[in-house]
Amino acid sequence: MSDYLPVFALTRGETVESVHFGAIAICDNRGNLLWHYGNPDTITFLRSTAKPFQALPFVEAGGVEHFGLTARETALICASHSGTDEHVAVAASIQRKAGVTEDDLLCGTHPPYHQETAERLKAAGEEPTPNRHNCSGKHSGMLAFARMIGAPTADYVNPSHPVQQRILHTFAEMCGLAPSQVALGTDGCSAPNFAVPLRSAALAYARLCDPSALPPARAAACRKITAAMTAYPEMVGGPGRFDTALMRLGGGKIVSKAGAEGYQGIGLLPGALGSGSPALGIVFKISDGDARKKARSAVAVEILRQLGALDETQLQALASFGPRFPIHNWRKLQVGEGYPVFAEIDAREQV
Amino acid sequence: MSDYLPVFALTRGETVESVHFGAIAICDNRGNLLWHYGNPDTITFLRSTAKPFQALPFVEAGGVEHFGLTARETALICASHSGTDEHVAVAASIQRKAGVTEDDLLCGTHPPYHQETAERLKAAGEEPTPNRHNCSGKHSGMLAFARMIGAPTADYVNPSHPVQQRILHTFAEMCGLAPSQVALGTDGCSAPNFAVPLRSAALAYARLCDPSALPPARAAACRKITAAMTAYPEMVGGPGRFDTALMRLGGGKIVSKAGAEGYQGIGLLPGALGSGSPALGIVFKISDGDARKKARSAVAVEILRQLGALDETQLQALASFGPRFPIHNWRKLQVGEGYPVFAEIDAREQV
Repeated sequence: MSDYLPVFALTRGETVESVHFGAIAICDNRGNLLWHYGNPDTITFLRSTAKPFQALPFVEAGGVEHFGLTARETALICASHSGTDEHVAVAASIQRKAGVTEDDLLCGTHPPYHQETAERLKAAGEEPTPNRHNCSGKHSGMLAFARMIGAPTADYVNPSHPVQQRILHTFAEMCGLAPSQVALGTDGCSAPNFAVPLRSAALAYARLCDPSALPPARAAACRKITAAMTAYPEMVGGPGRFDTALMRLGGGKIVSKAGAEGYQGIGLLPGALGSGSPALGIVFKISDGDARKKARSAVAVEILRQLGALDETQLQALASFGPRFPIHNWRKLQVGEGYPVFAEIDAREQV
Repeated sequence: MSDYLPVFALTRGETVESVHFGAIAICDNRGNLLWHYGNPDTITFLRSTAKPFQALPFVEAGGVEHFGLTARETALICASHSGTDEHVAVAASIQRKAGVTEDDLLCGTHPPYHQETAERLKAAGEEPTPNRHNCSGKHSGMLAFARMIGAPTADYVNPSHPVQQRILHTFAEMCGLAPSQVALGTDGCSAPNFAVPLRSAALAYARLCDPSALPPARAAACRKITAAMTAYPEMVGGPGRFDTALMRLGGGKIVSKAGAEGYQGIGLLPGALGSGSPALGIVFKISDGDARKKARSAVAVEILRQLGALDETQLQALASFGPRFPIHNWRKLQVGEGYPVFAEIDAREQV
């Protein structure tokens, strides 16, 4: 548990007041650890950062073609969406095509992340339904996969269900691990989730972004997923969300997927750091879970800034997410600031 | 910034998912460091944990008698209250006695911490006024102090204002520090706040709880403050708040005052650990600020449990605050748990 080092500080006046700890791993698609901060072997859960891999066996098996899914729908299957009406409509469309209904979803319910939508529902006395849940796309994909392979649609979140077994095996392969090396836990949405070393998850992201060494069907599925996510970033997150903003700026070269409890995965596609640059998988964890919701995006921006993945204009466009931000008090006076505190990344020299 | 060690872990399945870091210091009233975890010399802000000391010079100068303040009003001056109608009425009463008004308060505004009150105001389209601010009692006390010593009531939060200078000097003395050794910052409520080593703040809490070695006027003021806080714990916090619950159970022997950003001060009065036990000051910081609002109270309960300050019945009554709690997902399934991870306290043997 002391695998973590200080990654983000918050000051008041001239004094550091608070410190978030974390660990970072950056790998290429051969599993070379190019840079790390804290212990890259720290084992923790990917949470929603796993979503592209939870979609992968379905896409690899031909699910997109089988059900005639659009790229927007594919993006939603990889999403932690904001629960807007648009997101709900896309989830419902996947369900129609797959011959399932919202009632089949076992994700539970929570108010939409999108504040305006949440307030509108509340004012109307409308309870959020499962399609508003940020994971409804993922669950719709799992149900579609169950349909496609003739598995039961009931209890599809059971770790022994064929869909979950296929997901586990595919995810483990992407990480370069045996399934038995992947620790399981139950996610917020009741689906199985995976804990692996940060470096293994970084490898999985690097392979997702440059799958050229993978078997052709797997490689094609990876490309379909990253193409969908980067073409429809508003499906993967929502208005004002970091993943959405970053992928919009990334010109198809950056895949970004946050997970709960301060986890973040970012994949750089070949060429993202300039002509001929290799794919990179960047994975980090804010150890405390970042309930403040400030440290993770700031650390992400700082990593990308240090790697040279973002130019000045892109950094300006992301400035509300970090890397530095002012801290204001109840009278709107600036009383301090927040900023990343990890050392200069030297991975750039190695790529 | 690596002064912190893991203090609280959250699991998912069998795997630790998230870790809060922190540091703890326990001192007696002679400044002996009886136990520590992490670096007891970690310097950070007390935030609202400083409130009893911000009230101290006012009480010591005879402010309570001068304005005919009740113990409930004195408790509110030391409070981070929940902004209920009752809290607002007590703040207004202090203001009437001091000849100031709510309009003189420079704390700014925020929705009341008390959820029902916040929702009621919102439904009525009523904007929260400064008296709803958790610090309105403290600010009322500062204004009363300014009145009493003939200082201006405008700009009373300026660090050079006589009231703030008296507070700084008194706080520094309680910490066994020179005023120049106290780092300043602006609090959420715009008043000056203080950063000192954890062990210095722990000494200040131990002296507050056993002021017998302090000059008589200071000692009497300390006793007046701890008596007011422990007699009216609902004034110091509010419904469902940890400080309130703990002081209610403490039978006048435990003073508890949280601060923002994961800071906590607890003072044990003589005899709290059994007949003849000395006063203890317990101070700790959750490094990341504990925005989740789970780790701090759980760590506090665990420290008191290990010290033997709480019996089984008291621990049962505090069980919703910790030390362990289950983690549930959106479908109310238990998916993990949270628990303190610091080593056994050996201070008990030394006291």
